[in-house]
Amino acid sequence: MNAEIIAVGSEMLTPERVDTNSLYLTGELNNLGVEVVAKCVVGDHRDRLAGAVRQALARSQIVILSGGLGPTEDDVTREAVAQALGRHLVFCPEIADALERRFAQAQRKMAEVNKRQAFIIEGADVLPNDRGTAPGQWLEESGSVAMLLPGPPHELKSMFERQCLPRLKCLAPQQAIRTVILRVAGMPESDLDQLISPVYKKYLNPVTTILAANGEIQVHLRARCATEAEAGALLAEVAAPIELLLGDRLYSRNGDALEVVVGHLLRDRRATVSVAESCTGGMLGERFTSVPGSSDYFVGGFIAYANAMKVELLGVPPKVLEQHGAVSKETAEAMAAGARRRTGSTYALAVTGVAGPDGGSESKPVGSVYIAIADDAGAHTEHRRFLGDRQRIRLFTVQMALDLLRRRIAYSRPA
Amino acid sequence: MNAEIIAVGSEMLTPERVDTNSLYLTGELNNLGVEVVAKCVVGDHRDRLAGAVRQALARSQIVILSGGLGPTEDDVTREAVAQALGRHLVFCPEIADALERRFAQAQRKMAEVNKRQAFIIEGADVLPNDRGTAPGQWLEESGSVAMLLPGPPHELKSMFERQCLPRLKCLAPQQAIRTVILRVAGMPESDLDQLISPVYKKYLNPVTTILAANGEIQVHLRARCATEAEAGALLAEVAAPIELLLGDRLYSRNGDALEVVVGHLLRDRRATVSVAESCTGGMLGERFTSVPGSSDYFVGGFIAYANAMKVELLGVPPKVLEQHGAVSKETAEAMAAGARRRTGSTYALAVTGVAGPDGGSESKPVGSVYIAIADDAGAHTEHRRFLGDRQRIRLFTVQMALDLLRRRIAYSRPA
Repeated sequence: MNAEIIAVGSEMLTPERVDTNSLYLTGELNNLGVEVVAKCVVGDHRDRLAGAVRQALARSQIVILSGGLGPTEDDVTREAVAQALGRHLVFCPEIADALERRFAQAQRKMAEVNKRQAFIIEGADVLPNDRGTAPGQWLEESGSVAMLLPGPPHELKSMFERQCLPRLKCLAPQQAIRTVILRVAGMPESDLDQLISPVYKKYLNPVTTILAANGEIQVHLRARCATEAEAGALLAEVAAPIELLLGDRLYSRNGDALEVVVGHLLRDRRATVSVAESCTGGMLGERFTSVPGSSDYFVGGFIAYANAMKVELLGVPPKVLEQHGAVSKETAEAMAAGARRRTGSTYALAVTGVAGPDGGSESKPVGSVYIAIADDAGAHTEHRRFLGDRQRIRLFTVQMALDLLRRRIAYSRPA
Repeated sequence: MNAEIIAVGSEMLTPERVDTNSLYLTGELNNLGVEVVAKCVVGDHRDRLAGAVRQALARSQIVILSGGLGPTEDDVTREAVAQALGRHLVFCPEIADALERRFAQAQRKMAEVNKRQAFIIEGADVLPNDRGTAPGQWLEESGSVAMLLPGPPHELKSMFERQCLPRLKCLAPQQAIRTVILRVAGMPESDLDQLISPVYKKYLNPVTTILAANGEIQVHLRARCATEAEAGALLAEVAAPIELLLGDRLYSRNGDALEVVVGHLLRDRRATVSVAESCTGGMLGERFTSVPGSSDYFVGGFIAYANAMKVELLGVPPKVLEQHGAVSKETAEAMAAGARRRTGSTYALAVTGVAGPDGGSESKPVGSVYIAIADDAGAHTEHRRFLGDRQRIRLFTVQMALDLLRRRIAYSRPA
């Protein structure tokens, strides 16, 4: 069973506003086993909205409209849906009376224009609004249903929960939807897809989605079955061979972010970490400390942005900087060793590189980074060249530094 | 002239993700005098997407698609648009070669699946992608245009700005739309609105929008006139009294971010800054160093997350920590003094606070922060209690620290 959501309102077609009602509605529909296959925003324009409603009803069994039920001329949802279905609008005196009572209660006189809210599409059920003046409507049309809900989120949520959910539960087939999120580091999207597509392509259920952002990839497996148990078993069947193929590049099976996974590893081993950052300028520390309770394992660090600071704060020998340059394996390792020595942490991560857009050279182009990790067993450095702008290079660098630490702890070997 | 935007990707039909590219695109289209009349999100489903494209092209002269241009099987935008227009896909060897070169540059082998990105719809112009692998496409069809743009925002923005805007300018009717963006720190949105609404409410043109996020507010004034000169004059007329009312809370008239404004002030005075961060864990350093060329004035800093680190890295006297606690004016000032002493910077900013969700007490509740600034003239501290979650408290703290430095430099007085 599929659904579509139509948000009505010209204000959501400006550069400043997004529709958020659809996120709530999507979550509730998914819980019923109903998938949202499309959603759209249409301005306060009757013909255009009528067209969108016709198309949605032709494709999907459930169509939810939000907004455009107010009393003013630019509230066109009632008229547009009536037009789309070729039905009349009928004045409903009971609604008008209820509105009038509501205004009287607030000791205000009802403006004439509010009577627009008492018009109901022929054959519709009225959905009472316990949070505002605009009543909703529930319609059935050749096997599909359409709901007209008010735009304000608290009115919409209350009406959907009380009036729509019980009706939808009778319509929707009993179904369970479960999702597994696998998170992967240190792998380009295309390589990952080549690796795991032979597995997931064999299945239409679960549906597999691959999302890439800032040096990490998420693989979403979403199973739709008659029962929770079946969905769980199906997910296990598909996830197992994918996990095997991903090996140690898979860092999370429950959606946890990399900094959370690394935090668990450190806490489990009662280990601590410090950082020495040049081109990332504090971004690595920020990631560590974005996790509540990170003070258990993150002790602190150094932002050694200027060369002189690498010497003074971290004790990098000036000779190393002279001979190898600030962006080098040797400097990265000296920074990591210095951070570890000065903080007494179990592990230290150091980052030095050219984030650009200026400062690149032939031998050290923009995007060159050295990431060093130091512990009792010594130091290890990875060199990469990341492409993209300053922000992207820094994000990829931080992601890789966290992953280097994860591997070092989890596998106790050079990554 | 009307436009529609279609965001492609099943991940944006989940309860967790919204499409944000359409906000950027709407802003740019509005600047050209083009209105967005509808937007939608369609999943990775070829037939459904083809249907949406056909409908949009029938209604609007400009249709922009974002996403679904990646190399994997679930990237269906190319195929769907070809299907909607009844055109073939053509393999373009030059694109394949360019992709291969890009991978070689990054010292990686290109996966076979990436060749999917070298297919172009018959008759389309290729839009080069300078930030990623997926090229875009520009199509004309019976008087309308369609653009296929990549989903990652930084790729989409760069391509739209460089490739699409110049072409759209030739199509769109000549209109001058000019915007002034005033950026304000240290003021709640409702106070600001109360202050300036008597001015802006007198005008329907320019349109005024107030946006608040993370401790700063932007006031957008958007004028639409026949000529640039008229728009400029109108904006000047409305902005002048608003600027007067905002006074020193206004930090930027050209849209520059606070860290950029502060960078200019430091550079102009040949001054430098260092940081000592506790609860922000590197976020302040990250903001400073997000600006290209910030090495001119940002020397480095300390992430003194653990108490012991405040003593060892910054020389905070243990007695200060004992008597006043880590979250106190005295500790913040000792941290700032230590950072300045150890780096030799002109200014030092120090931050200590309770970011939560745990660690609060009656006298130091979650959200309490002390922000100290030190220079030749001595130290000055501000105390605030920010509401919200860990991320919000940290963002507000960093914003306020930057603003403290701005006032200290610009007005040479305690903020």
